[in-house]
Amino acid sequence: MVPPDAIQLDPDRGARTGVPEIVYAPGKTVTQVVAAFAGLLDRGVAPVIAARCSPEQLAAVVEAVPEACVTGALVAARQLADNGRRVAVVTAGTADQHVAAETAATLAAFGFGVDRIDDVGVAGIHRLLGRVDDLRAADALVVLAGMEGALPTAVAGLVDTPLVAVPTSTGYGSSFEGITALAAMTASCAPGVSVVGIDNGLGAACTIVRWLRPRGAVERA
Amino acid sequence: MVPPDAIQLDPDRGARTGVPEIVYAPGKTVTQVVAAFAGLLDRGVAPVIAARCSPEQLAAVVEAVPEACVTGALVAARQLADNGRRVAVVTAGTADQHVAAETAATLAAFGFGVDRIDDVGVAGIHRLLGRVDDLRAADALVVLAGMEGALPTAVAGLVDTPLVAVPTSTGYGSSFEGITALAAMTASCAPGVSVVGIDNGLGAACTIVRWLRPRGAVERA
Amino acid sequence: MVPPDAIQLDPDRGARTGVPEIVYAPGKTVTQVVAAFAGLLDRGVAPVIAARCSPEQLAAVVEAVPEACVTGALVAARQLADNGRRVAVVTAGTADQHVAAETAATLAAFGFGVDRIDDVGVAGIHRLLGRVDDLRAADALVVLAGMEGALPTAVAGLVDTPLVAVPTSTGYGSSFEGITALAAMTASCAPGVSVVGIDNGLGAACTIVRWLRPRGAVERA
Amino acid sequence: MVPPDAIQLDPDRGARTGVPEIVYAPGKTVTQVVAAFAGLLDRGVAPVIAARCSPEQLAAVVEAVPEACVTGALVAARQLADNGRRVAVVTAGTADQHVAAETAATLAAFGFGVDRIDDVGVAGIHRLLGRVDDLRAADALVVLAGMEGALPTAVAGLVDTPLVAVPTSTGYGSSFEGITALAAMTASCAPGVSVVGIDNGLGAACTIVRWLRPRGAVERA
Amino acid sequence: MVPPDAIQLDPDRGARTGVPEIVYAPGKTVTQVVAAFAGLLDRGVAPVIAARCSPEQLAAVVEAVPEACVTGALVAARQLADNGRRVAVVTAGTADQHVAAETAATLAAFGFGVDRIDDVGVAGIHRLLGRVDDLRAADALVVLAGMEGALPTAVAGLVDTPLVAVPTSTGYGSSFEGITALAAMTASCAPGVSVVGIDNGLGAACTIVRWLRPRGAVERA
Amino acid sequence: MVPPDAIQLDPDRGARTGVPEIVYAPGKTVTQVVAAFAGLLDRGVAPVIAARCSPEQLAAVVEAVPEACVTGALVAARQLADNGRRVAVVTAGTADQHVAAETAATLAAFGFGVDRIDDVGVAGIHRLLGRVDDLRAADALVVLAGMEGALPTAVAGLVDTPLVAVPTSTGYGSSFEGITALAAMTASCAPGVSVVGIDNGLGAACTIVRWLRPRGAVERA
Amino acid sequence: MVPPDAIQLDPDRGARTGVPEIVYAPGKTVTQVVAAFAGLLDRGVAPVIAARCSPEQLAAVVEAVPEACVTGALVAARQLADNGRRVAVVTAGTADQHVAAETAATLAAFGFGVDRIDDVGVAGIHRLLGRVDDLRAADALVVLAGMEGALPTAVAGLVDTPLVAVPTSTGYGSSFEGITALAAMTASCAPGVSVVGIDNGLGAACTIVRWLRPRGAVERA
Amino acid sequence: MVPPDAIQLDPDRGARTGVPEIVYAPGKTVTQVVAAFAGLLDRGVAPVIAARCSPEQLAAVVEAVPEACVTGALVAARQLADNGRRVAVVTAGTADQHVAAETAATLAAFGFGVDRIDDVGVAGIHRLLGRVDDLRAADALVVLAGMEGALPTAVAGLVDTPLVAVPTSTGYGSSFEGITALAAMTASCAPGVSVVGIDNGLGAACTIVRWLRPRGAVERA
Repeated sequence: MVPPDAIQLDPDRGARTGVPEIVYAPGKTVTQVVAAFAGLLDRGVAPVIAARCSPEQLAAVVEAVPEACVTGALVAARQLADNGRRVAVVTAGTADQHVAAETAATLAAFGFGVDRIDDVGVAGIHRLLGRVDDLRAADALVVLAGMEGALPTAVAGLVDTPLVAVPTSTGYGSSFEGITALAAMTASCAPGVSVVGIDNGLGAACTIVRWLRPRGAVERA
Repeated sequence: MVPPDAIQLDPDRGARTGVPEIVYAPGKTVTQVVAAFAGLLDRGVAPVIAARCSPEQLAAVVEAVPEACVTGALVAARQLADNGRRVAVVTAGTADQHVAAETAATLAAFGFGVDRIDDVGVAGIHRLLGRVDDLRAADALVVLAGMEGALPTAVAGLVDTPLVAVPTSTGYGSSFEGITALAAMTASCAPGVSVVGIDNGLGAACTIVRWLRPRGAVERA
Repeated sequence: MVPPDAIQLDPDRGARTGVPEIVYAPGKTVTQVVAAFAGLLDRGVAPVIAARCSPEQLAAVVEAVPEACVTGALVAARQLADNGRRVAVVTAGTADQHVAAETAATLAAFGFGVDRIDDVGVAGIHRLLGRVDDLRAADALVVLAGMEGALPTAVAGLVDTPLVAVPTSTGYGSSFEGITALAAMTASCAPGVSVVGIDNGLGAACTIVRWLRPRGAVERA
Repeated sequence: MVPPDAIQLDPDRGARTGVPEIVYAPGKTVTQVVAAFAGLLDRGVAPVIAARCSPEQLAAVVEAVPEACVTGALVAARQLADNGRRVAVVTAGTADQHVAAETAATLAAFGFGVDRIDDVGVAGIHRLLGRVDDLRAADALVVLAGMEGALPTAVAGLVDTPLVAVPTSTGYGSSFEGITALAAMTASCAPGVSVVGIDNGLGAACTIVRWLRPRGAVERA
Repeated sequence: MVPPDAIQLDPDRGARTGVPEIVYAPGKTVTQVVAAFAGLLDRGVAPVIAARCSPEQLAAVVEAVPEACVTGALVAARQLADNGRRVAVVTAGTADQHVAAETAATLAAFGFGVDRIDDVGVAGIHRLLGRVDDLRAADALVVLAGMEGALPTAVAGLVDTPLVAVPTSTGYGSSFEGITALAAMTASCAPGVSVVGIDNGLGAACTIVRWLRPRGAVERA
Repeated sequence: MVPPDAIQLDPDRGARTGVPEIVYAPGKTVTQVVAAFAGLLDRGVAPVIAARCSPEQLAAVVEAVPEACVTGALVAARQLADNGRRVAVVTAGTADQHVAAETAATLAAFGFGVDRIDDVGVAGIHRLLGRVDDLRAADALVVLAGMEGALPTAVAGLVDTPLVAVPTSTGYGSSFEGITALAAMTASCAPGVSVVGIDNGLGAACTIVRWLRPRGAVERA
Repeated sequence: MVPPDAIQLDPDRGARTGVPEIVYAPGKTVTQVVAAFAGLLDRGVAPVIAARCSPEQLAAVVEAVPEACVTGALVAARQLADNGRRVAVVTAGTADQHVAAETAATLAAFGFGVDRIDDVGVAGIHRLLGRVDDLRAADALVVLAGMEGALPTAVAGLVDTPLVAVPTSTGYGSSFEGITALAAMTASCAPGVSVVGIDNGLGAACTIVRWLRPRGAVERA
Repeated sequence: MVPPDAIQLDPDRGARTGVPEIVYAPGKTVTQVVAAFAGLLDRGVAPVIAARCSPEQLAAVVEAVPEACVTGALVAARQLADNGRRVAVVTAGTADQHVAAETAATLAAFGFGVDRIDDVGVAGIHRLLGRVDDLRAADALVVLAGMEGALPTAVAGLVDTPLVAVPTSTGYGSSFEGITALAAMTASCAPGVSVVGIDNGLGAACTIVRWLRPRGAVERA
């Protein structure tokens, strides 16, 4: 008597906003995820990405779209060709790597080259100082940290590469599942640091896409 | 017996990070603000900016540096020449304009052209829809909103212009001095929205500077 | 030695308040839920609803009252006849649909016609604009959104249909299990938006019942 | 160099949403408040309201628009004729009356008859019980309470009159400037209670306007 | 190399404070719970209580002390004789009953007569009004409520029986696991309401013990 | 057009609840405070108390009721005769004394003898240990502390005197205006500690009144 | 395509900071934990510690490094020789012992003698008073408490031994997973109390190491 | 009728705890501050310190005790002779200096040599790197920072000098009056960082006193 509508796709979003619709899997059934993923593919969207998938959702997408490529909890298809830009994804510690992986896979799907600079947290600042040339060489940075979230401030004070900060839920003590890092990063004493939501590796990648893609590019076939 | 050190200036910060040291006035004496402002000027830094000044601090800076230009609580000198880029500063309501003024004055000091798109909050979405061409025409956007902080999400869903979101402390009800808008913006359902701290119009401008200035430019004389 | 009292039913609540007692299942034993549900039925209450039931609770109710109708975690019996009013239940995204289902099933049990307008979040505002006629055609709206919770504000700025807003716990980043959406909705810049608790689809439906049912109607047999 | 745009008025908002644009005074200059108030009047909007005005703002509006009527911090002009509906504004204590005054003045400006039921907090429930007939006689209720915010729940359990709840910042102990009442009201055990922001007497009145005005009425001259 | 000390018992606490040491089970091993329970029994303490036990802890205590009596997650031995005082334990809803059971079992162990007044939440205030004589007849009250936590205020406004309020974690919407009820109860507009921690049925019972036991009574054998 | 109702007095509250209506001054006009105070006096209520008065409110009450007695921000009249019970008001530090004064004056108005035990915070536990006999000699205790709020727990572990805890807003560091002490006291490891709101010295006194006055006493003339 | 970098070890951290790199296991794979542990061992670091390990991680480390010693969720190798200093680890209750074990094992790995003073919470202050000589005899103290977190304040008021406070997540009522204790300890009225994060037994031990190790000692082989 | 007790001094606290009683001025009258200050002096305490004094309190102390020495809001007398230890007080920015002054004056009163290392926040990490030798040369460090509070983590990763961290209320954006820095510092990824309350420069100094004074020293004449 009260059947839910079919899923409403927004296939023109990429042309309109520079970032096409991305399937957010939590709260959706396996069938809905597959339908959305395949539907975007059918309408010529590129790239097509589903994020935060459960193993069942991932398996069903890959069964329906065998060419889809899985990275962690993210699956992508019809990835864009290399656009010649390189982004360095920088983590404070190993525990941030699952969020970094979401960022890196999204950036790769949009055609960015991705470098990883891992384990350079401020507790051993010389590790970061040793990578300054790599930080400068990138076209943009995504900087991830949990706990006290100090890394983006330190990076922003060292180089002039544009950056996006990602607070992660890594940590103990009083990390409060990433709230401490979120507050710290938005209170950064280094001007020019902007921040996305906790563990939102996808959102950080999309921020890079907005800033570095050629404006007006259309990814609908 | 315990005299404070002289102020430590960081005149190479602009060359290093793309954004020179900016004098943050709260907590400093009038003398310290003037000394820092003049000291940066003496060392060839450009532009030189002091933000969040009290009327006394502003007056003292202008007395010491007559060519300094005051906008709201901000004073700037040795502003950069027009760099050919235009940024639109977008506000949800009139009450956000004092933060927007900080953003606009900072951008102007760095040589950006600034357009204002005011009073386009989501409670009257047609006002925003009527400005879509202006939003698209800009090289970047700074989007400010208090209360529920919905405007950056709506903007990010309409155009592909890169943007930075600024939560403001405007509002009543349960705005909680900007915390609601900060949380809402970092939880945005529109991927690619990144956020600075509450009322941090200066930080938003510096984020634009990082993304849109020619890399490697040196502003030290 | 300390036996709990029998369950106290309040069979006149419908006549008194316009909304009869509804069985809230969490914290009750299976036996208590069935006893309350059957007890209200025995006393002539209409409709009889139990909400937030576990699968075991649902099964036990249906076994005891075979004509009861299950929707998600809600079970209802002695539903009211069509009252000629139509309510549109509007969601920002697919992940809000389980809350929307609770709203829709409750409204249907009270005799309202229910339309669904799904997936019209503000990240793609044209989807919402394309449904304005449907929003206007309804006698009332229930608008659900998680994340930044901007949808009710946008809807309230587009049409004059009365509405109730429901923050949902959908989201990531800094959604904080719906707290962000709750704060955002109660801070809405669009006057005339009132809000129920997080994920409280039932409460939103009951708000509609209070406003749109004929006053003084008695549902006790 | 960076002059703010003129104020953007939204004179069709009333026709579109049932509630015309209302001037929110905080953060605006005296000149801006007067310009907005007079501008709405010039464009035929009715009623015209400015809320949360400072004494200076009030005086300037009345000087510019002598027929404007001041109640507390609110000023209104071109008030609507009596629409035959009566709303009871219910307060828990005397300290809630300044918010209640905002509600009452707004309702009166929209042509509602307003009754006041004051000082009926749950600490003396017999006072509330003695007013049940008055509560039932109204077409709708606005129920305001600070401290523990229990009054809307008690009212909603006594009568079937539709209601809107307003948490106020009244109180001590752990009232937390209204946050406790806001949380309590949105957690109400009485289904059908919807809530506006803290001290948002204006928003409560507008909610009533949305539910009880004839749909489609146009207030633009 | 770093063995933990043996458990330190405080067998004189009852003589000193009126409430003997009570074994708080979470975080203790099964062996530690049994050792503490038996140790207090050996030292003549009365009553002996262990609270918040897991099923394994309960089983082990009963195996070691067969005369021990289990109620919910609480086990007691050497209960005190009837002291002639009666306490009514009052709940807002069925879901509060597991906390009420902890209160009731503790009071019974200390020799109090316990009456239960259940399901009298403020959403149906007539239920509470119908029990006023019972509320007056008690020597003291423990009043438990979740959600908006309004019941203690209503009770305190009706009768002069001394009372202790217990916020429970029952609820949905914005109950926030009992924080809303805790804040509401400590902000109560009814003077004379004091409050224990969330779900702390044990603490409420001990508060009664402190107020109503003959001072100076010694329960050590 | 929308005049507020006259103040609703509740002169039977004392007979009903053991604590007569007390005038809470904040948010009331001087005229309202005087009217309420005199009105209760006229109706034979005893004692009559107004709390949290401004100097203007105090002066106006004393002018209208010359026999009224002022203590800090509280004014009382028709105080009850000595009831033979003694209460010790215990503070952690000197800065808590203004709240303690509210408690003491209220207790005195109800006929209790009041002793003061000041400056016995847990940072110098020997001071508290030196007063154990005084703590034991009292019929009840009110224990006030700010900062970490540890004093009630320490007291409750030393003596069997019934007590009420009052968190105060005293402190620095992370006292958070009393929230830390409120949380600490409701999380007390000493069973039998119950708590009133932050700085609510009045509420603590009323709690004592409820527990220690002869039940059924009527204070209405 | 986007392989994570190899783990970056920081083998000189001990020489530089007095505390060598410690492997924080959560978020790392079993392989990563073993690689980091063995890598530090290979580079001559001493001691080598991995903390917060899962059973699988512990087993894998012990399989790879048979001489490693497991305490709770911590594993250590190449422990330092006795340095002649003794630290007392003080707990409020038995439930704090798992955090205390982390502290004790870390201290032992660094060559400290460790004494345990357990179950001396402020609810029975005589237990603490009975251990004053032991508290004085130690070179330093680590004081752990959950719930209201009062123990460090009481200890700091009794003895002059330097101490570090650890809030634990132990408790019920309104302990809020240790936040209450963290706030209470940082608001302590006893000057000289410093605090580490919630449940951060490791951090407390490292604080002791920083203060009491001979400066300039090198633990790299 | 209810006179407050005389102030209770604790003249043996220094001998007992290593830190004598310090007068905390807020909430005390001018008379009480002077009485406490002079009383401690009379009893031979050394040093005698009053902190957070108003100008009136400072003036009155100096009038009563002419040899007292004022620094900011702190006044001290009978300062201890140089103990040969040096402490470096390190600030992130100029705005932290008023808290640093409280720390420095307290340390000086206890006979420590104090060095200042100012303006070395992590946004310009080279400034900090340039002072590493000074950081190493100190016997201990007090590290103060507001905003994101990253400085103590960076310092702790560079040198092995023992340190205490002080979050300050400096900042904007989302500094939340120091809560962000407090959370960040207690969540530090650098083990061995311990923290005092927000702006608690006094507490940091006292922590140093506890760790670095000769144990058992007596400062009572």
